[in-house]
Amino acid sequence: MLSETAVPELQEGQALARVKYLSVDPTMRVWMAGDSYLPAVGIGDVMRAFGLAEVVESRHAQFKKGDKLVGMTGLQECVVVEASPRAGWQKIPSIPFLSDTLFLGALGVTGITAYFGMLEVGKPQKGETLVVSAAAGATGSVAGQIGKIHGCRVVGIAGTDEKCQWLTDELGFDAAVNYKQPDWKQKLAAATPNGVDIDFENVGGEIMDAVMNRMNLHGRVVLCGFISSYTKEDPAQASLGIFIVKRLKLEGFLVLDYVSRFTEAATELGKWKMMGKLKDRQTIVEGLEKAPEAINMLFTGGNIGKMLVKV
Amino acid sequence: MLSETAVPELQEGQALARVKYLSVDPTMRVWMAGDSYLPAVGIGDVMRAFGLAEVVESRHAQFKKGDKLVGMTGLQECVVVEASPRAGWQKIPSIPFLSDTLFLGALGVTGITAYFGMLEVGKPQKGETLVVSAAAGATGSVAGQIGKIHGCRVVGIAGTDEKCQWLTDELGFDAAVNYKQPDWKQKLAAATPNGVDIDFENVGGEIMDAVMNRMNLHGRVVLCGFISSYTKEDPAQASLGIFIVKRLKLEGFLVLDYVSRFTEAATELGKWKMMGKLKDRQTIVEGLEKAPEAINMLFTGGNIGKMLVKV
Repeated sequence: MLSETAVPELQEGQALARVKYLSVDPTMRVWMAGDSYLPAVGIGDVMRAFGLAEVVESRHAQFKKGDKLVGMTGLQECVVVEASPRAGWQKIPSIPFLSDTLFLGALGVTGITAYFGMLEVGKPQKGETLVVSAAAGATGSVAGQIGKIHGCRVVGIAGTDEKCQWLTDELGFDAAVNYKQPDWKQKLAAATPNGVDIDFENVGGEIMDAVMNRMNLHGRVVLCGFISSYTKEDPAQASLGIFIVKRLKLEGFLVLDYVSRFTEAATELGKWKMMGKLKDRQTIVEGLEKAPEAINMLFTGGNIGKMLVKV
Repeated sequence: MLSETAVPELQEGQALARVKYLSVDPTMRVWMAGDSYLPAVGIGDVMRAFGLAEVVESRHAQFKKGDKLVGMTGLQECVVVEASPRAGWQKIPSIPFLSDTLFLGALGVTGITAYFGMLEVGKPQKGETLVVSAAAGATGSVAGQIGKIHGCRVVGIAGTDEKCQWLTDELGFDAAVNYKQPDWKQKLAAATPNGVDIDFENVGGEIMDAVMNRMNLHGRVVLCGFISSYTKEDPAQASLGIFIVKRLKLEGFLVLDYVSRFTEAATELGKWKMMGKLKDRQTIVEGLEKAPEAINMLFTGGNIGKMLVKV
């Protein structure tokens, strides 16, 4: 529900920022469903969201008018930036060739999620085969490219031929499989002739099961999310049998555990971006009132790359 | 089906051994259900089984009459011991105070499973809380005692009060919970006031879910088995959500990956046994014809400690 409230009077230490872009992420469904790794967003509360905002007025020691910040703006047009360092606001640098919105995507939380998921959990080794599900999404597309940078054979799973073509032709994935084609499991098998060493899992359900069946002995599952279940009543499940038969390791992770290292990750991702090793794409919906529609598009597969709302 | 065949004429390099005891293990159900980590046992084949056998005639370079061996005897009265070192026969040492049958249990494959599962996968640290399901079984009872040796708070889950009492009063577990009592989940919570750092999982299903709900951030699940599903059509499943919320790690393992280190494990377990730090118990059924009944007892919870058939 859209509602209007007066912009509050700024207190000493606060800044007022106008929200320019909002990051639209599958985890928003998790935040709405109940308490999880963060407290649930209650009905009537401002919906939690990452965003990019420009300071329009400041009594804040650190930020001045015109500064562009990323942080938890919420789904709103204006946000009061608090003084507390715990609020986690980051001023984005102005770097030629790097657009501001990159700091919500490939160099932002979704890209950083891929960075730590791959490097701290997946630990890709040269010559290994990596499969990424939801590979044309904001996180999956970066995870796959990090796999390529580390010398892996990378196979993406996505839901349209256009997405698959983007993965192979533009991002350099070795293969991409459209899971909406009836023979996709055979295609996945053909695309992973040496089996799968790392599964970067974003989807769960039938797609995860199909990848599990291709896992090599001692393979690793990087459990980033399971979008196929976020809109269902039944909890996401994984079949355990293969974990013993193939001696697999599964590890769930959250990017929030790496907050103190976000700058390191964004710097590294930024270098890859400037070297042309990391490509990105955005799907932008205009208007705050379109945010619910944009969230739904994540679950119907309507986006390629990072999903953003331009406010 | 019991069937009789003639004892074959020994070839050079072979020995004939009379089976004394057979190890009865939940994984037998896995072997019967189809190909898994080992090829399925076909209908009409001799059922695969570990056992303890005494050499009665030998043309084998390594084993002589009277030697006691452990290995894959199969569910039969006599076995031909092949020359190939790959056959994996081990002569058991004669050590005062250590009964022969220990080499099928606490110092045998089930004890060794607990040893590597705990030390190579679980990696218990002093002060951590370990929960073991099927804790009164051959593997669980050893896993829990290894946890105590490494300074953990150890809580067992078992299906009778008698088993629970054995765990706490004799094996030194800090607490044991009978999952057949209606309030067992509250009791599990009360027994794990600081949450759970390591789950040594033998059961799966509802019992595993209850333990997962007590896991601490960054907890580890040592996936040894999931006996609750071996007799069901539906595959065993684990709920994924908690793995992200709590950033858990799950690892499936198989003792067969550690064959080259069995002697190391048996030696260490044997030391603990002689120092009184490792206690064991056996449930022995007499008569080869009772083997199917003994296998079923594993699934109805009829055994305490190692289940054996005396042939």
